[in-house]
Amino acid sequence: MKQEIPYKIYLSENELPKAWINLRAFMKNKPAPLLNPETKAPMTKDELSQVFCEELVKQELDDTTEYIDIPTEIRDFYKMYRPAPLIRAYCLEKKLGTPAKIYYKFEGNNTSGSHKLNSAIAQAYYAKEQGLKGVTTETGAGQWGTALSMACSYFGLDCKVYMVKCSYEQKPFRREVMRTYGASVTPSPSTTTAVGRKILEEFPGTNGSLGCAISEAVEAATGLEGYRYVLGSVLNQVLLHQSVIGLETKTALDKYGEKADIVIGCAGGGSNLGGLIAPFMAEKLQGKSDCKFIAVEPASCPTLTRGKYAYDYCDTGMVCPLQKMYTLGSGFIPAASHAGGLRYHGMTSTLSQLYDEGLMEARSVTQTSVFEAAEYFARIEGILPAPESSHAIKVAIDEALKCKETGEEKTIVFGLTGTGYFDMMSYEKFHDGKMTDYIPTDAEIEKALAKLPKF
Amino acid sequence: MKQEIPYKIYLSENELPKAWINLRAFMKNKPAPLLNPETKAPMTKDELSQVFCEELVKQELDDTTEYIDIPTEIRDFYKMYRPAPLIRAYCLEKKLGTPAKIYYKFEGNNTSGSHKLNSAIAQAYYAKEQGLKGVTTETGAGQWGTALSMACSYFGLDCKVYMVKCSYEQKPFRREVMRTYGASVTPSPSTTTAVGRKILEEFPGTNGSLGCAISEAVEAATGLEGYRYVLGSVLNQVLLHQSVIGLETKTALDKYGEKADIVIGCAGGGSNLGGLIAPFMAEKLQGKSDCKFIAVEPASCPTLTRGKYAYDYCDTGMVCPLQKMYTLGSGFIPAASHAGGLRYHGMTSTLSQLYDEGLMEARSVTQTSVFEAAEYFARIEGILPAPESSHAIKVAIDEALKCKETGEEKTIVFGLTGTGYFDMMSYEKFHDGKMTDYIPTDAEIEKALAKLPKF
Repeated sequence: MKQEIPYKIYLSENELPKAWINLRAFMKNKPAPLLNPETKAPMTKDELSQVFCEELVKQELDDTTEYIDIPTEIRDFYKMYRPAPLIRAYCLEKKLGTPAKIYYKFEGNNTSGSHKLNSAIAQAYYAKEQGLKGVTTETGAGQWGTALSMACSYFGLDCKVYMVKCSYEQKPFRREVMRTYGASVTPSPSTTTAVGRKILEEFPGTNGSLGCAISEAVEAATGLEGYRYVLGSVLNQVLLHQSVIGLETKTALDKYGEKADIVIGCAGGGSNLGGLIAPFMAEKLQGKSDCKFIAVEPASCPTLTRGKYAYDYCDTGMVCPLQKMYTLGSGFIPAASHAGGLRYHGMTSTLSQLYDEGLMEARSVTQTSVFEAAEYFARIEGILPAPESSHAIKVAIDEALKCKETGEEKTIVFGLTGTGYFDMMSYEKFHDGKMTDYIPTDAEIEKALAKLPKF
Repeated sequence: MKQEIPYKIYLSENELPKAWINLRAFMKNKPAPLLNPETKAPMTKDELSQVFCEELVKQELDDTTEYIDIPTEIRDFYKMYRPAPLIRAYCLEKKLGTPAKIYYKFEGNNTSGSHKLNSAIAQAYYAKEQGLKGVTTETGAGQWGTALSMACSYFGLDCKVYMVKCSYEQKPFRREVMRTYGASVTPSPSTTTAVGRKILEEFPGTNGSLGCAISEAVEAATGLEGYRYVLGSVLNQVLLHQSVIGLETKTALDKYGEKADIVIGCAGGGSNLGGLIAPFMAEKLQGKSDCKFIAVEPASCPTLTRGKYAYDYCDTGMVCPLQKMYTLGSGFIPAASHAGGLRYHGMTSTLSQLYDEGLMEARSVTQTSVFEAAEYFARIEGILPAPESSHAIKVAIDEALKCKETGEEKTIVFGLTGTGYFDMMSYEKFHDGKMTDYIPTDAEIEKALAKLPKF
């Protein structure tokens, strides 16, 4: 007999995953390797270790080990905010009048406000294990920087965050959260690095960009004894750590005899979506399920739906390795959007490969429709979602309404990656009717794609 | 054999309390009744019903029923964010090197960011049951207004919030959260009420005050067909609803065979502390425990530690009923403080009576010492606490350090009422060394107390 399903399924701490699942190990066609931008040869372990922590490089390159143990120290930290609840959206189902069952995995119940902490604590742990003094990183919207600050504070590591200047100025509260956790936050471009000084000389009034902040963070890490650079998305290692999201979700569903028919997540660099779908996709790849997967991206930055599958630079500054991925071109500058976490020109290689094989779908949505869904959801389910997360809400509602038409009792699962407390300026624009949608023209996309590196 | 205690004790939804505990029913010496400010006679049910919802008036006046059932509709809403976790502060204990066991009940995992939602949803429910169209209220720091907006949105009630003008302008994000939940938010004083217009005429440039906002909200409620006024603290009904905090805490401790030796909470109007201690104090009043209770208040607004136990007005405007309570005088204007939720001249009558009988202790702490404790706690336990909640953290740490000296293995429980995401401006002042402490002089307090109403 099936148990009655509660509003929130909380696993016990004993049920917290003991190992991450490495989705690449289940893929017949592996994601293509990272290439050295100069030699175009696959990046070696030694090359990568100059920038990244050794253990993380190992994880980055490992596409055969199915499960990788989560060290006890990381699990202990996870216990402070995990297992995260899997919430049955009873109120939303009722309001929509849908026969579908809707579940969402809520990753917002920690101070970083998002899932980013899952990888931040892992990366900080391995840095500490390696005997490093500290790490550097960049942050745009600020969630990753906050998560990393918390993780470094826990392990007593120094944390240097390069924050895109316009964010630094527009989001002073994000900056203060990082300072509370002892991080030093530098507006980028800055005079603390050669690349920063060069950019400031060329463009004196610039507001900075993620590409520039990455360059500064990498330079700072490689120039300092005992420092490495860490990144919050796109990389394989990040997807590996984020698989804790999917593993908990699947355990919770299994516990109540539920089977996901559709899994939905927002996709910027792909860290959340890659983590959420990992165990479900692994089953599908083994022929044990016919679950459907939907990546949701902003219409203003339609990487999967309108991009090209090709080798490209991961950063705007073109100093990082080349990655084979769906991309709009590293020169594509997404329109200013209220979901800063999804403004990335590329997509992590694992998801790109799965999408290319037709194992995953993608959909793009406009931001005003996203904020409509966000406000609707907040009023019904209580939680105030981040704009990024609300992309998944929008499509989950769409799918539930389709079920209403067809009468199908599908089980829909989506990832609610975080809260919108630091995004109220965007909500204000929405309330005041001042939010606009921007969809790039074909010509704009073609122009950026024309600059892809040649082979 | 004792079970191993997890980091977070989550009760199941079935363990959610089915009834609130009415602490007054256990008290030999009842809190004194509210008095009509004109006749000085106890307020009758009819008089109170002109301003408040009928069922809430019943609860307000009931000091004999020990347990009052929580309606199913309220429990269903509670299930969206409750039971709240009782967290064992393993990391903090280790860092302090104390033999004490420290637990905290965390009420910040909901969008209002605090415990206020526990009473907001109850008050909105009874308003809906009575067939009302809407409710009015005032808000200072904004947590109560946010909670009430969420509750009204859930039940489809109109919600009019009068927000102290300086908060309205300084905390635009709080305002936007309320708008997201469909509330109308008016900066007070406003031209929408007679009292507001009068004040604006007298003091054209005024930034408003809580007293003024209360007056406007009461006028708005009584002037509109189908509206009533609701309040987020001080009242008996609020303490009743907030007892869900204490009940869950006690159930969680009982489950693991733990017994609280000290229970600590911050105290402004007393809603959180009154709710947290309710079942523990009820046991003490029945001679079943010798638990110690500590109310923590700001040194800038030392109601219990330096005030007087007397009948006084609940509001600065002196239009509300008289309440016997510890008070600094309704004319006492607390210094601008970063814990806006604790800037209240009085204390709920139940806690005042218990304190007067020596059943509860009180301590006042300076705000810089509170922010030091807050930052220390955030770095160790992850959660970024609200300034209000951090008053309890400060004293919990003090008590744990005493145990370190004496070697006593006491069990310390404190209430972590909320998160500080909307208080980063205060954290910034603290980080920049710009935060000051203000302790009122004896002369200032005597002056305000000299104006207590005479009998």
